[in-house]
Parts: sequence; C-alpha cells; structure tokens
Amino acid sequence: MDHGFEAMWADLEPIGRDRRGGYRRFAWTGPDAQLREWFVAEARRRDLDTTLDRAGNLWAWWGDPDAAVAAGDPGVVAGSHLDSVPSGGAFDGPLGVVSAFAALDILRGQDHTPARPIGVACFADEEGARFGVACAGSRVITGALDADRALALTDRDGVSLAEALRRHGRDPRDLGPDRDTLRRVGTFVELHVEQGRGLVDLGRPVGVATSIWPHGRWRVTLTGEANHAGTTPLPDRVDPMLDLAGLITGAREAAERHGVLATVGRIEVDPNGVNAIASQVRAWLDCRGADEDAVRSVLADLAPYGPQSESWTPATRFDPRLAHRLSTRLEDAPLLATGAGHDAGILSAAGIPTTMLFVRNPTGVSHSPAEHADSDDCLAGVDALAAVLTELTR
Amino acid sequence: MDHGFEAMWADLEPIGRDRRGGYRRFAWTGPDAQLREWFVAEARRRDLDTTLDRAGNLWAWWGDPDAAVAAGDPGVVAGSHLDSVPSGGAFDGPLGVVSAFAALDILRGQDHTPARPIGVACFADEEGARFGVACAGSRVITGALDADRALALTDRDGVSLAEALRRHGRDPRDLGPDRDTLRRVGTFVELHVEQGRGLVDLGRPVGVATSIWPHGRWRVTLTGEANHAGTTPLPDRVDPMLDLAGLITGAREAAERHGVLATVGRIEVDPNGVNAIASQVRAWLDCRGADEDAVRSVLADLAPYGPQSESWTPATRFDPRLAHRLSTRLEDAPLLATGAGHDAGILSAAGIPTTMLFVRNPTGVSHSPAEHADSDDCLAGVDALAAVLTELTR
Repeated sequence: MDHGFEAMWADLEPIGRDRRGGYRRFAWTGPDAQLREWFVAEARRRDLDTTLDRAGNLWAWWGDPDAAVAAGDPGVVAGSHLDSVPSGGAFDGPLGVVSAFAALDILRGQDHTPARPIGVACFADEEGARFGVACAGSRVITGALDADRALALTDRDGVSLAEALRRHGRDPRDLGPDRDTLRRVGTFVELHVEQGRGLVDLGRPVGVATSIWPHGRWRVTLTGEANHAGTTPLPDRVDPMLDLAGLITGAREAAERHGVLATVGRIEVDPNGVNAIASQVRAWLDCRGADEDAVRSVLADLAPYGPQSESWTPATRFDPRLAHRLSTRLEDAPLLATGAGHDAGILSAAGIPTTMLFVRNPTGVSHSPAEHADSDDCLAGVDALAAVLTELTR
Repeated sequence: MDHGFEAMWADLEPIGRDRRGGYRRFAWTGPDAQLREWFVAEARRRDLDTTLDRAGNLWAWWGDPDAAVAAGDPGVVAGSHLDSVPSGGAFDGPLGVVSAFAALDILRGQDHTPARPIGVACFADEEGARFGVACAGSRVITGALDADRALALTDRDGVSLAEALRRHGRDPRDLGPDRDTLRRVGTFVELHVEQGRGLVDLGRPVGVATSIWPHGRWRVTLTGEANHAGTTPLPDRVDPMLDLAGLITGAREAAERHGVLATVGRIEVDPNGVNAIASQVRAWLDCRGADEDAVRSVLADLAPYGPQSESWTPATRFDPRLAHRLSTRLEDAPLLATGAGHDAGILSAAGIPTTMLFVRNPTGVSHSPAEHADSDDCLAGVDALAAVLTELTR
C-alpha cells in the first residue's frame, strides 16, 4: 500500500472547510458526500467491498463477514466517523477512519492471516451537528433512536432528515434497526484523538478507554412577545433574552454545585433583529459528568426553563477484560475515562464488545480548529491499532 | 385613480413573506427589487417620473422639482420606506408610501393645483436589518453616513453593501451625498404607524410628531476559546456565553436605573454547536431614551463589555411651528414624541423642515407580525396626509 496515512490525510484536508476556520462537514451535505466517496475509493484501493447499512453507515470488509457469522466467529471492526461539528477540527473522527485503513495496510504488509474478517467502519452523523442527535447512525441501527423520530428531525433550514436522505438518493423507509449489520461485528475498536490532556499529563502517546460519562442534550424554548426595541416600555416587555441570561448563568452555577459539566453552546433567536425584542429564543444545553445523579440534579435545578430532552446516553463501561488485555498488549497503555460520546459507546450499550484507543492531544482542545495531534503520535496510534487488530484476529 | 389604498395594499401583501411570520424585506434582495418595481409601477400609473438618487432612494414627482428649485420654492415630499426588520409587520414603512400615493390621488381628484411640486419618496434600507445601520439611504445622501464606511458594511453572509449594489446593477462608486436630490425637498412629511399606544390612550386616529429620542446601536464582541463541551473542565473554560448573560442582564438593569430603553435583540454565536464551547459571541445593543445623558450612562455602565458604536442619532426636534400648524389644520391632532428612528429624523437633522404623522396602533406592537392598524384609521391617515399636502402646497 503506497497510499498511506499521510496521503489519505492530505486527500481529506481540503474537504468541507468552514469559512470561519476548521471544518463544517455536516451529515448528508455536499462535503459529506465527498467524504463518503473518499471512503469508498480507499476501500476499493484495497479491494474491499463497501456496504451501506440501513442508516447510511459505511462498512468495508477484508474477508467474508457473513461466513464468519455463520461460523459463529464474527469479525473485528475498526473505525469512527468523518462528519464534524461547525468549525470542527481535522482529527475528531477522521483520525479513527484513516488509522483503520492504515492499520489494515500494516497487517497485510506483515502477511498476517486474520482468524476472522476485519472491517473498517465510517458512521453517519456522529456529531449531530445538523439534526441535533449525536451518534444518529449508530443509534438508528442499534434501535436506540427510533427511525420515525429520526426522520422527523429537522436542520436549521427546516429540512428533515427524511428529505436530506431523499436528496442523497436514499429511501427514508430504509432507515431502521439493522441486525444483519450488527451481528457481523464481533468486536469494535474506535481510535480517537483524546479530548483532554490525560495522556499529556501521563507522557504517553496512546491510551485505552474504560468508560464514557453519561451525557445528554436538552433543548430550551423561551417564548417572548415581539415588539419594537425603541418604543416598548420596560415593564410592558416579555423579553426571552432575560430568561436566556438566567439559563446560561444557572447552568454554569448548577454544574459547579454538582461537580459536572454543563454548557450552552448553541442559540437561535427569532427574529434576531437589532431593534426588535425577541419573540423566541431557543438554546441547547449539554450536560454530562462521571455521576449520573449529579447530571440529573443539574437538570432538576434548571426545570423552571422547561428543558426538553433531545438525547440521553447512560454511562458506558467498555468491556473491562478487553481494555486490560489491550492495555497489556500496548506496553501498559494508560486506562482513561472520557466525557465525550462516541459511536463506540452506542455499540457497547448494544452489547457488542467494544474498546477505544485515544491518541495524545497536546493542548486537549477539541471541537475547534485548534484541535491537534502530532504526526508521531498519530503514527503511534496506527501502530497501536494494528497491534490491537492483530491481537484480536490471532 | 381606481387603484386606491386597498388595491395598493393588496399588491404589496404577498411580497417578501418571512417563513417565521410577517415580512422579511431586506435591502437589496429579491423582495426589495419587487417592492421597487411596485413603486415604479404606481408612479407610472400616475404619470409620475421616478428617479433614483445616489443611495438608491426612489423619488416620484408631480410637477418639475428642478424648476421649483430654480424659482426658490422647492417641493413637498411625502413618503417612507418599504423594507422591514426580520419577521416585521406590514405597516412599518409601507403605510407611509401607500398613503402618499393615495393622498396625491385625493389632491388630484379635488382639482387642487399645487403651488409647488409634490413628490413621493421611498427610502432604501431604513431598518438596517441587513447591513446594521438604520436609515442608511437617508444617512448617505445627507452625508451622515460616509459612503466608504457604508460600502464596507457586510451582511450575515459576509456580502458587502458594495457587492449587494453591484448585484442589483448599481455602481457602488455612485453612492454618496446627493445635494441635487435634497435641495428639491422644501418640506418632508413621513406618515407612519404609531409604535406605541399614545393615540389609543388619547382616543385619536392621527397624531403629529414633535421629536425622536436620541438613539443608537452598539455591537459587542465577546471572545472565548472553542473547545469540547464534554471534556473541558469548568475552570479551564473561556466561555463567552457567560459574558453574554452578564451583558443581557446588565443592559436591562442599567436601562431601569437610568430610565431609558436598552435591548439585546440580535445575537450571533460561533460555532453555535450544541457540544462546542463558543469561540465568539456577537451581540447588538439598542439603547435610547428621552434624555441623551441617560443613554450615555447606560453605555458607560456597560463599558467593560467594549461596546462599539454602529450608529448614533442625536435627539431630533421636528420643526415646532410646522408641527403646531399641522396639528391645528388636523382638528388639534395630538402632538407626540417617539423612541423610534425614521428617515424623517435624518432629513430634519440635515436642515430640511420635516414633520411626521402617526396613525393609531391598537396594541402599540411594532416590529412584529402582530403589528396592526385598523382600516378606518389608515384611511383617516390618508385624509390627514392629503390635508397636510394641500396646506403645504396652497
């Protein structure tokens, strides 16, 4: 394979740039279609067949996954996602997909004959940046997200997921749980850039995940009365901006009180005019922490704002024996928990033995154009993933 | 003239609907072009020539305005604007333009021979909803807004006014002060729906304006550090949303303290993702009141947020003799001040004798789809404007 890590990385680099910096690679958009073409081309370059499952997740297999299922010894899959948050970084997602292809190349170069098929996966709409539900692709195929609810989700322009799928040549009626796809996955491994400084502090390039914090998203709708900002006396106003201010400070204070994270990162204002009192403000709350009860306490404190749940993921405990086995195999790579949700968490919750590898992030910054991983650490991640795949297909 | 008030109103009704309710008629957009075509058609229907001035304001004249200038007795102009705020009402602006055409029809029907020309005007970009500066058209021709500064203003998509003008077939180099246009205006009268309940409380359909409060717009840029909402510890965050909350509550408290109006009605967040700590929040502050010092005090209180002035309009005192003369002519119509800015204020500040007529607004609501004026009151406004034009062209 001459088309290694750097070449794949360079091919992805120009796709879906955000004019405000970083990337804007939202699900079922033009950039997303380019990224999917890239995936199919890399699979074809390696003589792997690509299949699309019922949620539009991409799977490329080395070996026959269904024969393995029939033999009672299903395959091992590595992968992640290619979509991004607005102004997202280059690494969150793509690092896991590129590393999976590169690790597969290493195994082939070593004349490793895997005891079971190896797959590379790319999940659809992991970030939920467009339709509001993170890990939508993995949630749909595992049944954690109801297909009808998913199809009715809308983006900022009022386009439903059903309509977006139609525009990309897909039949929305196909969307749904996909047992045929899932039973092929004996083990899932997601490599990801670390979204924190755990590995920096430990001085190690690669770590193994133990768990994902429980986390959720809530939408808050604050209703006011539109009126002229220059003529409406203060006592006559119903200005939802004041409630927004209370929500923002209230969320922060509650998070500090209960020892978790809470963030208001997205706001939409109607009509959003300088001289018009807002008629409605919509704000989204992201809340997570090691302790589910503490997260619930934050939501209880914010109950007067009427938060509506958009998604909730309980704590994920990755298979502990698998994590320890891989840590040992990787020269006692450190074991880490994370606050960030991943498709690996959804598959784990669906009963698939799952693990994650983290690659050192020198600043810990993520979901930002400043997100970074050093080239040496990325290649160390590829080597670690190759070692893991070898271990799991002996 | 068979194409009277109701027919003109019906023609305007479908143009530039906002899918969130009301109208979205921003300057130099498709709906704006349709509104301009409507104006030209109404002028042509009445055998009036339409001219465009150096800022793209429209003027339709009955009689030769330049001959009147040469004779030292320039004309009388009635008019307003056709653009809107986002989700704006039907009346703010269009009522003044439609009423001007309808009043002109009345004068002609009465075989009134005006002693000087009568014009109908439609100002460009009164609301400033797209480029951020209200009354941009009248400010440019009077020199209150520098042409280079105006051309560099950008909309939410990064399109400059210069580019927007080019797309509408205009040469941006034409933009600038326009003395030839202004000297034709001996007196200006703007009829407008009231943006408050003054006339409701007084039980009168029509009033005469005495003054406009000093008012301004400021832009506040709050900078943070983009990062993952699920992995960044609270003490490590630089989250500009917290500053936004402080600005919103601080503006309201300062307005109450100093007895003026202050509003945060527009917010833009980057990257505006649910699971991303914001990298930047931009907020706009609208502040006005009867007392300029009190407005300045609010801004002083908010100085820590670094508000940058986008526009400032000192108090406007309309020609008091003209206001009293017209009030008397209109059966002692009540005299009112307003907090809302208007092109009439800009022309008045430029030394043109100017007055305004207000038409009763049953709820006082404006800059909202709920903005309204009863049909009988609108027709009373037309009659009042016809009486004023007759009085001023005897």
